[in-house]
Amino acid sequence: MIIDCHGHYTTAPAAHTDWRVSQLAAFREGGRAPAYPAISDDEIRESIEQNQLRLLRERGADMTIFSPRASAMAHHEGDERVSMEWARACNDLIARVAGLFPDTFIGVCQLPQSPGAPLGGSAAELERCVTELGFVGCNLNPDPSGGRWTSPPLTDRYWYPIFEKMTELDVPAMVHVSSSCNPVFHATGAHYINADTTAFMQLIQGDLFADFPDLRLVIPHGGGAVPYHWGRYRGLADMLGKPPLSEHVMKNVFFDTCVYHQPGIDLLCRVIDTDNILFGSEMVGAVRGIDPETGHYFDDTKRYVDAAALPEAGRAKVYSGNARRVYPRLDKALRERGL
Amino acid sequence: MIIDCHGHYTTAPAAHTDWRVSQLAAFREGGRAPAYPAISDDEIRESIEQNQLRLLRERGADMTIFSPRASAMAHHEGDERVSMEWARACNDLIARVAGLFPDTFIGVCQLPQSPGAPLGGSAAELERCVTELGFVGCNLNPDPSGGRWTSPPLTDRYWYPIFEKMTELDVPAMVHVSSSCNPVFHATGAHYINADTTAFMQLIQGDLFADFPDLRLVIPHGGGAVPYHWGRYRGLADMLGKPPLSEHVMKNVFFDTCVYHQPGIDLLCRVIDTDNILFGSEMVGAVRGIDPETGHYFDDTKRYVDAAALPEAGRAKVYSGNARRVYPRLDKALRERGL
Repeated sequence: MIIDCHGHYTTAPAAHTDWRVSQLAAFREGGRAPAYPAISDDEIRESIEQNQLRLLRERGADMTIFSPRASAMAHHEGDERVSMEWARACNDLIARVAGLFPDTFIGVCQLPQSPGAPLGGSAAELERCVTELGFVGCNLNPDPSGGRWTSPPLTDRYWYPIFEKMTELDVPAMVHVSSSCNPVFHATGAHYINADTTAFMQLIQGDLFADFPDLRLVIPHGGGAVPYHWGRYRGLADMLGKPPLSEHVMKNVFFDTCVYHQPGIDLLCRVIDTDNILFGSEMVGAVRGIDPETGHYFDDTKRYVDAAALPEAGRAKVYSGNARRVYPRLDKALRERGL
Repeated sequence: MIIDCHGHYTTAPAAHTDWRVSQLAAFREGGRAPAYPAISDDEIRESIEQNQLRLLRERGADMTIFSPRASAMAHHEGDERVSMEWARACNDLIARVAGLFPDTFIGVCQLPQSPGAPLGGSAAELERCVTELGFVGCNLNPDPSGGRWTSPPLTDRYWYPIFEKMTELDVPAMVHVSSSCNPVFHATGAHYINADTTAFMQLIQGDLFADFPDLRLVIPHGGGAVPYHWGRYRGLADMLGKPPLSEHVMKNVFFDTCVYHQPGIDLLCRVIDTDNILFGSEMVGAVRGIDPETGHYFDDTKRYVDAAALPEAGRAKVYSGNARRVYPRLDKALRERGL
């Protein structure tokens, strides 16, 4: 079985994204958002069947841990109420996808974060999504300011309400920023990768997993720059007087395989323990073209993982075993289906 | 011959760093800095012989392109006048090191950048350092705000005065941030690496080298996250309608080898053309300990380059040929010595 831990609903029906535009326009004018539009099951089916479902089948994966479009979370827009409305709309739409394609998609939620706002609302929305919609995790934005980086590090107590709720519900978070409103940072080419790197270094500096020994964080995009600079991070942990990374963070931190060329995946598999790698493609996502050097889509990461020098038992962990361990509610759902 | 393109004077005499503390204290109190202290040649000799020079000899490199301590540039402290005083003091000290050890050290200057300040002062200081002190390049900070990222992208015309002066003098810049005053970013573990990644993506988005075809930029720390995510960057360039990276940026951009483990250097050498890689160690620098997995210093990058699967001609380029091409004033100085 092959589980893709990192898929976004980047192909949502236009009525959904149009509503967001109206919502933000209403906010700027001091009014309330219009009613959320009616979207038919057929529209949702079509948006999935022609995109994610088609590509999953063509590429040979079985299911996707599916969340709202990351770049559209835009927690820096509007305020806490606007973020709450938008998160609920996005999460309800993901729940409909998972309801229409229960064998293929299982939900992960967007949180109603807002710069400076406390995380109680996010904890409540996570609880709603897990207990009422059957979701198995959340995307946590370490920079809801969208490239201004005004929040404290992830190890700060500011973040503890969401970590407490995650622990209570036994669900992980993918640490995932949204779009950048800072012109220095291209979203998918700089802000995403920087955030991954930044979050990992914060976890080295702090001691978050002493307070939350069962907390699990997935750092996407192959862990940002971290595996490439693994020696730097091992050395910095040592300089900071921390235990080895294997003890200090790697019981709780996982990297996906959203690295879009063979040498990158080879490095990831050479450096990072296979227990800490989850298959992911970020598909349909950041890079949509065909690599002229291979003739295949850049984001067809299964090809790279298939070709990586991994023992078969390790590859099986990367493809499904680790995802079932990191997302126990997914494992439970699969076991209930006899899988 | 082995040239290390990335060394900082991290071991400067205490009187120098103490003066900086006094200078900033005076600025806060609205006064002028005290006179710069007398530092003897012997103090400078000792600070170099027991550190950089000893390590160069032990590790087998011949010379270092040497610049002021990057983390101490701190362009976000004080104002433009304070940055100018500090840059001149730091650069004059580097010139003394190069004067005392002319066979081993050649200078690269710190620029007197200040957030929001125009770059005329930086262009003037670069000219002074090159024409009067014999320097061969500069360190350019893409984020003089120290982790607040308030400057425009490097492709913006804001930066053109320094690029014009670099072109006129035929010297390259290393794109190198300083310390971070934003608590989310650890300096050497996040801010440095993020800045490298960010700068490269800005260069993809823009078209800087159409305006400056002879401009040369060294992106340190192995290019940040870029080589690990080379497929992502090739794909993003394609999505943005840009030419292939080999034409669009890689005639003008170079990465050093400050990657502190063998798998990282192996990836760098596998992915990036050897014409674009310059040997560097960032020594004595960011990571000072011994890797328990190898028994050698993390930043003894020569060991990794020696062990990398490179043809000998390629290794020679990495060790000296590329540095002589990217820093033509270094090449001229070496040829004048018959090297």
